[in-house]
This record gives sequence, C-alpha cells and structure tokens, in this order.
Amino acid sequence: MPGIDRRTFVRAAAAGLAAAAAGLARARPAPAAVPEASGRTWRVDAGRLERRLQDLSRFGANPQGGVSRVAFSPADVEGRAFTMEMMRAAKLDVRIDPVGNILGRRPGLDAEAAPILFGSHIDSVPEGGNYDGDVGSMSAIEVAQVLGEKGYRNRRPLEVAIWCDEESGLTGSRGFVGDIAPEELERPARNGTRLAENIRRIGGDPARLAAARHEPGSIAAYLELHIEQGGTLDAAGVPIGVVEGIVGIHHYEVTVRGFANHAGTTPMDKRRNALLAASEIVLAVDRIVRARPGRHVGTVGRLSVRPGAPNVIPGEVAFTVELRDLRAETIESLWSAIEAEARAIAERQGCTLDYVLRPPDRPALSDARMRAIITSAADELGLRHLNLPSGAGHDAQELARIAPMGMIFVPSVDGISHSPKERSRPEDIASGANVLLQAVLRLDQGALERP
Amino acid sequence: MPGIDRRTFVRAAAAGLAAAAAGLARARPAPAAVPEASGRTWRVDAGRLERRLQDLSRFGANPQGGVSRVAFSPADVEGRAFTMEMMRAAKLDVRIDPVGNILGRRPGLDAEAAPILFGSHIDSVPEGGNYDGDVGSMSAIEVAQVLGEKGYRNRRPLEVAIWCDEESGLTGSRGFVGDIAPEELERPARNGTRLAENIRRIGGDPARLAAARHEPGSIAAYLELHIEQGGTLDAAGVPIGVVEGIVGIHHYEVTVRGFANHAGTTPMDKRRNALLAASEIVLAVDRIVRARPGRHVGTVGRLSVRPGAPNVIPGEVAFTVELRDLRAETIESLWSAIEAEARAIAERQGCTLDYVLRPPDRPALSDARMRAIITSAADELGLRHLNLPSGAGHDAQELARIAPMGMIFVPSVDGISHSPKERSRPEDIASGANVLLQAVLRLDQGALERP
Repeated sequence: MPGIDRRTFVRAAAAGLAAAAAGLARARPAPAAVPEASGRTWRVDAGRLERRLQDLSRFGANPQGGVSRVAFSPADVEGRAFTMEMMRAAKLDVRIDPVGNILGRRPGLDAEAAPILFGSHIDSVPEGGNYDGDVGSMSAIEVAQVLGEKGYRNRRPLEVAIWCDEESGLTGSRGFVGDIAPEELERPARNGTRLAENIRRIGGDPARLAAARHEPGSIAAYLELHIEQGGTLDAAGVPIGVVEGIVGIHHYEVTVRGFANHAGTTPMDKRRNALLAASEIVLAVDRIVRARPGRHVGTVGRLSVRPGAPNVIPGEVAFTVELRDLRAETIESLWSAIEAEARAIAERQGCTLDYVLRPPDRPALSDARMRAIITSAADELGLRHLNLPSGAGHDAQELARIAPMGMIFVPSVDGISHSPKERSRPEDIASGANVLLQAVLRLDQGALERP
Repeated sequence: MPGIDRRTFVRAAAAGLAAAAAGLARARPAPAAVPEASGRTWRVDAGRLERRLQDLSRFGANPQGGVSRVAFSPADVEGRAFTMEMMRAAKLDVRIDPVGNILGRRPGLDAEAAPILFGSHIDSVPEGGNYDGDVGSMSAIEVAQVLGEKGYRNRRPLEVAIWCDEESGLTGSRGFVGDIAPEELERPARNGTRLAENIRRIGGDPARLAAARHEPGSIAAYLELHIEQGGTLDAAGVPIGVVEGIVGIHHYEVTVRGFANHAGTTPMDKRRNALLAASEIVLAVDRIVRARPGRHVGTVGRLSVRPGAPNVIPGEVAFTVELRDLRAETIESLWSAIEAEARAIAERQGCTLDYVLRPPDRPALSDARMRAIITSAADELGLRHLNLPSGAGHDAQELARIAPMGMIFVPSVDGISHSPKERSRPEDIASGANVLLQAVLRLDQGALERP
C-alpha cells in the first residue's frame, strides 16, 4: 500500500467497520406501516397542560407575577431539572446535548429515519411572563405524553427540544445548527460569566460544541408552538396563527452631527442643531415605513443627545433605526428611501450623517408544506387561523437553516409580552397544542413527502 | 431706665459712638469739584491690557489652549492671588468680602457717596477659554490703573469687583445682593465640597455671609465689560454691543408617556410611541420660536428615551424646553403656544404630556441712562455700536437688583465661547476697555444724575 501509512490504514478500517454497522442497522426488518390517518381524534389533556404551565411558573416566580428565569440562573437550572423530570414521565429518553439543549427522544420504528423535532424554550427575560417559550415547551411534552398514552407507533424518531438560552441570543438553537464560533464560548454572557462556563453550569459540554452541530437534511422537520407576542390574533379573535416566517432584522446605528453651542447666545438662524435633524429623521422613518403597504415595521428605539444639557444646542445625536420584514429586499428598499431622506434632512439642518449596519438577521421563511400541514390540522380541528409573520425572533429561525420549519402561534391577550402581564387563554393554548399534536402525526405519517 | 438692661445700654452707646464718628466723617471739608468733562482724551494701554490677559491665562492653562480655572480650584486660588497683586499695583485697596468676592477700592473725594462698581469674574468653565470674564476683569483693573496714573480725583469711591464663582451659579454676585440662603452654604458644590468650605478656601468668611449683602441704593451704578459669547457683533462687524438686558430663562422639564412595546411584534398602527410625539414637539418648539419676530431663543437641549433599546418602542421621553427673552411676557406667550401644540401632538400620538417649570431666572434689564452713557462714550470714541440682549447670564443681572446696571459687549470671533477656541481681537478688547473707562468717568462726573 504505497503512500498510505499505518495510522491512515487504521482510520480507514475503523470507518469501514462503522459503515458495516450502519449497513447492518439498515438491514433490520422493515417497520410495520403506520396507518395513514392514525390519531386524528386524539386530543391533548387541556387541564394537565395548564397544570404543567402552573408548575413550571414556580421556578423564578416574581412577587408582581411572571418569572425571572434568565438562562443559566439558579431558577433556570431548577426549571430545567423539573422539565426533564416531566419529560421522563412522558416516557422520553432525555439527554443534554453539548451546547446545553434538553432533548427528549421517542424512538421511531425506523431508527435510521431523520427525526421530527418540536419544542421551544423555558428561559425568560428578566421580569418576563409565564407564556413566552413555556407554552410551546409544555405543549410539546404534553403531545409526547399523549402519543405515549395512546401507544402511537411513530415511524420516525420524535424529539422534544427545550432550547437553552433563547432570550439572549438563541444560543441553544444556534449551537444545534453549528452557528456558535469557539470565540463566542470565551466571551462573557450577560451575567458576566463566560458562555462556556454557563453551558457547563446547565450540564452541557462546551469542549464538544462541534458535536452539537446538525447538518441540513439531518432533521426531517421542526415545529414550534409559541405565543404571538403581538396583538394581531387577539384583535382578530382568531386562535391559530400560521407563521409565514420570522422577519429579518436590520439594525442601523445612525449619527447626526451638528455644532454644540450656547443655547442663550446663539441666534435661531445661526444654529446647526443635531436634534432638529434627528427629530425630522425619526418622523421620516415612521412615515416611510407606514407609507408602504405590508407588515414590515420600523422603529427608532434608542436615541441619545450630546452634550445633553438644557442650555446647550445639541451637537450630536446617535440613534438606532431597526427595520423588520419577511423579505430582505423590502428592508433594503425601505432603508434606501430612509437614507436618502435622512441625508437631505441633515444637509438642510447643516448637519452630517453617518451610519453603520450591524450584522443583520436574515429572514427565515417557514416551509410551504409545513404551513399546509398546520392549516389542514387547524381546519380539521375546526379552528380559525390566519397567516402572519413573526416580528420577533425564535429558535425556529435557526432550525429553518437545516430543516423544513413550521410555527404555530396562539394569541397573546392585548399583544403584551416580555412582561408579567403577558397572558394567553387556556383554551387557546389547548387549541395550539392540539394543532401541534395533529401536525406531528401528519408529519410522521408522511405528509411532507406527499406532493 | 426701666425695661432696658445693661447690655442693651452698652450696645446703644456703641451705636451712638459709631453715629458720631460717621457724623465727623460727613463734617469733613467738601471735596473739590470734578471738572465736568475731565479725562475725555484718556485711553487704556492696549499692550498692557493684552499682557494682563496673557499673564492671567497661565493659571489653569490647558495643553489644547484655554484654561480650566474652575471656581475654588487651586488654579482659581492662584489666579485670584495674581489678580489681587495686579490690583494693588493699580493702587487699589484690596479686600475679600465674606462671600469671597475680590473688591479693590479707589477712595473718592466724597467718602460717603455710593460707590461706582465695575468688574467681572476670572473663574472659567472646565476647558474654557481666555476671554469669558477675563476681558472684563483685566479691563477694569487697567481702567483703575489709568485713572491712578492720570491722577484722576474721583468724586465717588470706585470699586473694581472680581466676582467669585460666576460659572456655576453667580455665587459671588448673588451673595453681594443677599441672595444666598444659609442652607446653600451647607450644600456640596460641583467639586463635592460644601460651599461654605469653598468660600473659606478663597479667603471668604461664610459665617459673616449676611455682611456681604448690599441694599438697593447702596451702589451708585454697576458696569460690566464682557465678551458677547454669541456671533451677532462679529457677524455685523461692530466692535461695541450695548446690552439691553440679560434675558430671563424658563426651563421646562417635559415628559411624554406612551406605551413601551416589542418593536418586532407591534404593528405600526398599534403603537403609542413617545419618541414620535417628542420628535414632533422638538420641531414645534423650533417652529413656534422662529415664527415670532424677535431675538428670543428656544432650545431642547436634553432628551432621554426609555427604555432606550433598539428593539423596544419608546414608552417615555423626557426632555427640557428652555426659552429665553428679555421680556417675561414673551417667554410666557411662547410657552402657551408650545404647550397647546405639544398637548395636541401627544394626544394624536396616543401619549400623555406633563411638565414642570423650574424656578425661572427673571429678565434683568439694563438701565436706560447707563445705555445712553455707554452709547455716548462709544460715539465719542468713534466706535460703531449696536444694542442687543445678552442671551447668557452674567453677574450684572444680580447687580441690576440693587443698582442701575450697564453692560458693554465686545465681539466673540465666530460667536464661540466656553471653548478653548474662544477668542476676541485685541483691538476690540481695547475698544471695549476704552468705553468702560469713558463710561466710568461719565458716571463719576454725574451723568446718571443729569436728566
């Protein structure tokens, strides 16, 4: 074997053994066929689902209502332990992957088939509510429990995923799709601790981060039930939202510079007031965004004035412009219009304008077949539904990079979220969970593969 | 002597002795008459005046130019010692009053006559320039020196006043007119030290604060030469400004409240965005102020946005509206228009509006006779002049409460002040000092008393 040394040979031999083992696995008897429309009458136990949410809400509960179950905090660690117990009780094989995600597997008849994933997260923002993430997580476990109780013989492996640290940057789902660079592990997270240490704290193994990565095609489909966090469904009185996709986000840091001067001695016509320019631009952003039909949004959320004294004409104003839409082209076209108008305003006010675009979040569209499956499940359950974009980010946007993705929304009362006042009605949550259950059944029964 | 104890008797006797001594003083031979138009050809020594400014600029000099000679700092203490030496060299009798002002007296032929005061301040803002305050202070000493060298026999006592701590709140001049409450002495100043301790540090005697107080009528007149700090004279190419008065300042703290919400999930038509309302109000302030003819100014200088995150719709914006004019009625009428418009804007944006008016600075008009004296001196010197308000505060506004007040402005190049780039031309400074000299002579020669 010229040119091949001993070590290479050993590796090649090991690879051959592994391939042989895989071949053996594939050679197992074909699993029994799953009935085409099995389980169509099954429903989640709405009362039990409500109790799951109530039980989880104890972890990190705040006196004013809601929870502070920030990722990696003791409340998060305890809530995760409780959730894993609940998953084991639902007969799932529970593990923690290297990045810290909790995965609960229900093995499939076809062990080689790519699994169907569904889940959400249980970490919260500081002083958050009891529904964001929790509804999808508890419903996923309830669905698994119903499937177990009914003795459903799933063809594909089913995996309930509880993604870690959704709220401060989709850490778990990004790790799952291989989008965490090793440097990020060394950076301090919001709690001041290195991410690697945070991950170890919740049972992950950051040294094996690469092993958490999943390639495109390795997951059959990803489904997530979540509260809308906006007021569209609640205002329309519709219980089910079929998510068209998760919007892309462009975040521009804009700086307008004029000339700081004495507010008493500088006549009105001798001023280069950066705040006048910025105020006009703030209004222009709103006007331009509203003028175009669509569901895109644009916001100036942060703005700071320098030097910022009552008796000094503002010399510099820095502010953010955040644009969101399902189509990156819409965002770019809005920004072109805003930038042109902003430059004209700045010039008219004797100011200069500079901006930086932060690394953008690309839009993540849901899969058309997934939307059809969700729609059909809702129709069969007699639930009204409407299509809408998700204006907020979700783990589903990361999963969309490697698998067909679908998301189900349930209404947020008054559209309030990230607040102790966040609330979704038990009947809507049960409806959402039933849609999730029926969609999982359809996926397992080959709905994706049918034309 | 029923009802009168011994101590009261002793005090009454002491008072009687003092009255007798004053009577003796009044009984001195009448002073020689001052020639009606003595000294009309006298001029300051422009080169010496420039050297005075250069010498003073060493104290607190910054590498980037200008000075940081903040009141009560070591640089201020050293600059004051240097200035007192200069005053003694100009044959003035120098003392420090209880509040810390430096007063240099040139006794008058009529020792009982109310004195004529003129001067300014030598403290600076942090990273200030070499002209604000210094020009008037050094010119006042130069004027005293010229009078001494010419052997002028002034009728009234003349006093050069170097007011302490002008920049952080007119401390010296307020003390001189009795406007410092004892509580203020106990409060920490900007350097963190109690004002009483600061005053002791520069040679004052805060325990005797009340003795610094002067009643209306006790001062014959107050004159101050100062740089304009605005660009009106420089733009007009006019060397002398005759100050009409020092503007009043109303400072309103306005708060607009909407509803903070998720910038991604809240549709554009469901927002109560406090920053949109605030931006409209900022522009309305500017528009309303400009629409009315006059020299009044209006500024939003400080503005803060809460919660102030790129992805959250602003729920609350707090900002200042500062209005300045020589007439309080103009300010009040401007505010009425602004308030009405601001309320309408807030309502249209679904927001509420509240405001607080901070204790206002009342306008301080100069005395018409003082303006006529300054004008006549400038005319005789062949110097062009124009009337203008002072948009900035000055010690003169406090003195105006107890005496006829006049102020002379010289141009600030490009209107820049409170900056190392602050500059006034030597020839303009000399012109201003000559107007001061001639105005002092006119005052001493009875110009105020003539119809």
